[in-house]
Amino acid sequence: MLQTLSNHFTACLLICCPDRPGIVAGVSQFLYQLGANILDASQHSTDPQEGLFFMRMEFRLSHDNRHTLENAFETQVAIPLQMEWRIDYSDQRKRMAILVSAYDHCLMELLWRWKNEELAVDIPLVISNHSKLETACTSLDIPFHYLPVVPDQKEAQETAIIQLLQDHQIDFAVLARYMQILSPRFVGLFPQRIINIHHSFLPAFAGARPYQHAYTRGVKLIGATAHYVTNELDEGPIIEQDVARVSHKHAVDDLVLLGRDIERQVLTRAVIAHIENRIILHGNKTIVF
Amino acid sequence: MLQTLSNHFTACLLICCPDRPGIVAGVSQFLYQLGANILDASQHSTDPQEGLFFMRMEFRLSHDNRHTLENAFETQVAIPLQMEWRIDYSDQRKRMAILVSAYDHCLMELLWRWKNEELAVDIPLVISNHSKLETACTSLDIPFHYLPVVPDQKEAQETAIIQLLQDHQIDFAVLARYMQILSPRFVGLFPQRIINIHHSFLPAFAGARPYQHAYTRGVKLIGATAHYVTNELDEGPIIEQDVARVSHKHAVDDLVLLGRDIERQVLTRAVIAHIENRIILHGNKTIVF
Amino acid sequence: MLQTLSNHFTACLLICCPDRPGIVAGVSQFLYQLGANILDASQHSTDPQEGLFFMRMEFRLSHDNRHTLENAFETQVAIPLQMEWRIDYSDQRKRMAILVSAYDHCLMELLWRWKNEELAVDIPLVISNHSKLETACTSLDIPFHYLPVVPDQKEAQETAIIQLLQDHQIDFAVLARYMQILSPRFVGLFPQRIINIHHSFLPAFAGARPYQHAYTRGVKLIGATAHYVTNELDEGPIIEQDVARVSHKHAVDDLVLLGRDIERQVLTRAVIAHIENRIILHGNKTIVF
Amino acid sequence: MLQTLSNHFTACLLICCPDRPGIVAGVSQFLYQLGANILDASQHSTDPQEGLFFMRMEFRLSHDNRHTLENAFETQVAIPLQMEWRIDYSDQRKRMAILVSAYDHCLMELLWRWKNEELAVDIPLVISNHSKLETACTSLDIPFHYLPVVPDQKEAQETAIIQLLQDHQIDFAVLARYMQILSPRFVGLFPQRIINIHHSFLPAFAGARPYQHAYTRGVKLIGATAHYVTNELDEGPIIEQDVARVSHKHAVDDLVLLGRDIERQVLTRAVIAHIENRIILHGNKTIVF
Repeated sequence: MLQTLSNHFTACLLICCPDRPGIVAGVSQFLYQLGANILDASQHSTDPQEGLFFMRMEFRLSHDNRHTLENAFETQVAIPLQMEWRIDYSDQRKRMAILVSAYDHCLMELLWRWKNEELAVDIPLVISNHSKLETACTSLDIPFHYLPVVPDQKEAQETAIIQLLQDHQIDFAVLARYMQILSPRFVGLFPQRIINIHHSFLPAFAGARPYQHAYTRGVKLIGATAHYVTNELDEGPIIEQDVARVSHKHAVDDLVLLGRDIERQVLTRAVIAHIENRIILHGNKTIVF
Repeated sequence: MLQTLSNHFTACLLICCPDRPGIVAGVSQFLYQLGANILDASQHSTDPQEGLFFMRMEFRLSHDNRHTLENAFETQVAIPLQMEWRIDYSDQRKRMAILVSAYDHCLMELLWRWKNEELAVDIPLVISNHSKLETACTSLDIPFHYLPVVPDQKEAQETAIIQLLQDHQIDFAVLARYMQILSPRFVGLFPQRIINIHHSFLPAFAGARPYQHAYTRGVKLIGATAHYVTNELDEGPIIEQDVARVSHKHAVDDLVLLGRDIERQVLTRAVIAHIENRIILHGNKTIVF
Repeated sequence: MLQTLSNHFTACLLICCPDRPGIVAGVSQFLYQLGANILDASQHSTDPQEGLFFMRMEFRLSHDNRHTLENAFETQVAIPLQMEWRIDYSDQRKRMAILVSAYDHCLMELLWRWKNEELAVDIPLVISNHSKLETACTSLDIPFHYLPVVPDQKEAQETAIIQLLQDHQIDFAVLARYMQILSPRFVGLFPQRIINIHHSFLPAFAGARPYQHAYTRGVKLIGATAHYVTNELDEGPIIEQDVARVSHKHAVDDLVLLGRDIERQVLTRAVIAHIENRIILHGNKTIVF
Repeated sequence: MLQTLSNHFTACLLICCPDRPGIVAGVSQFLYQLGANILDASQHSTDPQEGLFFMRMEFRLSHDNRHTLENAFETQVAIPLQMEWRIDYSDQRKRMAILVSAYDHCLMELLWRWKNEELAVDIPLVISNHSKLETACTSLDIPFHYLPVVPDQKEAQETAIIQLLQDHQIDFAVLARYMQILSPRFVGLFPQRIINIHHSFLPAFAGARPYQHAYTRGVKLIGATAHYVTNELDEGPIIEQDVARVSHKHAVDDLVLLGRDIERQVLTRAVIAHIENRIILHGNKTIVF
């Protein structure tokens, strides 16, 4: 899609503001005057009672105009239109940490896609409360940090994780079947920056052992849900969900196996949407452009 | 699939018994000696702790052997193997009642398929607490009974419905978006004989207004569930479920529209499974062969 | 989504032009100056070699500005940017004809949705080469024209249909399982204005008897395809497709039954996309916003 | 599902014979007399014109009866009922070879599942015409054979592969995106024993570059097909297929990426069905129980 012009880069602008005439005109006029070419645009208006407008614009610009971009946008567009906004640059790769316990399927899926250049991120580290998946990471030259959860020392373990994430200037973390509940302190430090994969079709079967509960209830579809982590367990904004068909023939172990495949796909799609700056939070919901 | 032999008929045998060697041999040997040809067979064994065996066998038999079939089976096979069993004959069409309120989509889907001979049932009557859908039924020569719910007289209305179902020797009833909760008395008279369509992916969003709740929670898939009605509201054995993808662009009204299509499909598939004797109850779960 | 302002209306603008900076700015600036509020916008750029830009913008405007809209847009925006463009108004309902043979499922689906106000069109007439579905139409007060295909008079039959479509000022026609091949003369009169439903997953099983061919080939999914009709049989631009899972258990008749459900859904989605002006042709392909 | 009895094993019987009364009785009576417990059974009858009966029976038996099983079955059941049959034992793991070129996604998926014990096979070797994926195999202790295709020596390369497959007593081979066409000689040596994954929804886009063709045709779904290899290129019996939704936004490269995910899933499901002896060939079609 992009012309390869050596002194050009692409950027992605996300905005939220009160709905009114002139927003698209204001933003696109501003970009045009800077010489930007809009590559993709999506927008969403909430109902008139709420009256909010959301937009994602991806554009290409020459480096010459980059340093003035943000200040000028704030002054000329964002303040007059009462916008909240954010801009991301394609040449600043996000830094993603992965937290994992003993199940490897979500981790392996992410690492395999990253190695095949399907995930445009850096992965400075993987953190686990088990040592089992160390080789899987180090064989790809990704540092692996083993931080076991010792009785009465869970807080210290969490503090160590936070320190690692901050030291490595992590942009966001993925809980790839990390089987520990994060404290409010942890969550509060990374708002809309922790993605979890829950192994059920939320809000059904929130909490522990969802496949066991799905089996007991006799549902005909099982699912997985990727969501941002908040302090309400399994209640954070949903990014992506999917399901697979099951029947009376599936024992709990079969549901677990089948569920792995859904978890892998759903988590991957959510992570890609996050990396590509396609997600805007709106209350406890997501707009995924 | 079936040869049309004028003095032959097909039957469907459903059994449940303790799992042990010799069940398939016992049943198939019995049918062979009667001259039956097995057309289709499915079986399911639960885990060894529970140790139950379920089977559905569809077979073709000459009428000459029909009158002795059930007694002989009871004596020679069912008692020795401690079976619960049931047999249905393809030439005895089931009698299906439909209960509906004001939404017509599930009713119309069932009636259209019935008219096109996709549902091998008789429909002796449709009952509604609204008069709105009368013509839709009577234009197909299906009697329509308007039984409004009057304050303080809900019990009398229900008694009238029960009387109609019994007078018409109904085999099973379908709640095609019938927006009244049935009393335990009603439910108790028709065990595993009332099919409801719930407009959510149960157990998520049980109760009223599921599309509103789905919208508020921001799920990325909405669903519908067909289940047998029990005295636990929305907790009966699930027969069939399906989902459709939604996004932030869907307002509640859009979810309602989209949901209609899933409801129609899910209810149809559940009704066909019931008509074809493919469903065995196992506790609060279904085995759908 | 729309505020109900009595002297306002909504319009939908579709454009195609060479890709270059300033297009979104130009169009949105123009609309802003007219007082329009953009309700929804989608865009697509082809690869740089081809270098084309496509956009759909839905906006609300007061009637006061309506009469000047098109002339001003042509002069100020379309000519400078070398645009092909089209504008549709929500208060000018499209006029849809349905052509059908003897299968009723696609017709009934469209009529049922139309009656439930899911299709924002007028249906001035249904035309058929069989008389079978007359009552289905006339009971909804839709005029039904029976034009049988008589040997050696197919051309006259077609002429009569064309005359009816022109007399009734039809905007587009839907072939809802109309089993006659239209002549180039017919097709040429209604470019991108005839939608057909083909009962296979094109390009697989083009031509006649696709379910028989799918059965013989032993595919594990069957499908349906809605496309615009061109003079290359079953080769027109695809609008929508879907599939359903099948197995060795499905005889040809089962595929036909199952296929009906896919045909209904696929055709409905294609018709709605056409009505809502979401489709732009690009060579022999569609952009469906 | 299985009780762990130390001197017991499970076996899987596949049969095909002319349809007539008494087949299920004959087989199940035979197994009962040997003390076998039937764990799962599926059957299929073709239409009466063709009149064929297919069955898969999985059963548990003590080792004491194993040596007499096959001879007794042949004499007492198979010959009287004119059966073709085959029996497989769960304690004799199949030996699977993988052939691959440079794309790693199908190989990695199979290896990852094998390492996680989702595939009950041995993998004695991987063969490739590229050296690129050697480490992926050897790091799991799977021997990797690099056999490049040199101009004018393709026949010798194929001979070397055949020798390797025979030396390693391979039961079946999987072409995990192996981009060479096998000669009739090769195919003839391994009938119904070579599984290929084709990157389109066959019969659409048979041959080379299916994603390019799908892009050009503008289809709205892309797919993948796993099939047994025969001498008719891309015409062998289909085992499994699936699709994913695409739109005008997907460039050819996007289709390739998305297609990878479908290829992985479809090939995995086909391989598991083959390993579990769930597939019976019927002409150029498969029955997948």
